Amino acid sequence: MNTQPELIPHQGEACLASVKAVKDALYVLSGKWKLPLILTLSNGPLRFKEIQRALGEITPKILSKELKELELNEFVERKVFSTVPVTVLYELTPYSKSLDKVLDELRNWGLQHRQRIMHQPPIVSED
Amino acid sequence: MNTQPELIPHQGEACLASVKAVKDALYVLSGKWKLPLILTLSNGPLRFKEIQRALGEITPKILSKELKELELNEFVERKVFSTVPVTVLYELTPYSKSLDKVLDELRNWGLQHRQRIMHQPPIVSED
Repeated sequence: MNTQPELIPHQGEACLASVKAVKDALYVLSGKWKLPLILTLSNGPLRFKEIQRALGEITPKILSKELKELELNEFVERKVFSTVPVTVLYELTPYSKSLDKVLDELRNWGLQHRQRIMHQPPIVSED
Repeated sequence: MNTQPELIPHQGEACLASVKAVKDALYVLSGKWKLPLILTLSNGPLRFKEIQRALGEITPKILSKELKELELNEFVERKVFSTVPVTVLYELTPYSKSLDKVLDELRNWGLQHRQRIMHQPPIVSED
């Protein structure tokens, strides 16, 4: 009969699996712009210039790179319409919807954290 | 009487506020290590070397920097015990618990995303 508590190794393994899953998520979503970009497109497709305006301080070069990475990971689709001149729209894919809960929790946490740091005295080092 | 639909500007404002809140969250939590570090400490306080071992490929220099940033943002407390030699433990603060839901959702999403990319044919460019 095994009387040893199995809790600690199980916790350890579960923790390692969690770390791996969170790292997987961060690997795809990391960076300053990926999630704000997905949020910006969540109201509907936009042109490049419109996205740039909505995000504020992003450069065209960075925006272009970020959009390409989001396309590769199938969160965003680039649609070209044969108007004159050509219209290019960036649209969220159905898969991007899988991020809704992550985004909700990040938004809730961000709002709560801002409240906290605004109502808090500045941190003074005790050294 | 104002008969214009108010939906679009409202959505726009809500979207901007969301983008800001998510950017706030990412500003504090960004980087490859912050959230994995918090997860690693979620089973209890650990020594520096133990954290390093748990995280795998992190260098002592980076780990030290990341822990300091987590301390400044009050997610982690560094506790020094006057043993011989001195024992230093890193422990999560109660405030770090506010990240539980964010971490849960990131973990769920990471697991689901890994399943997806493992069961998917490789992406082939159509250009």
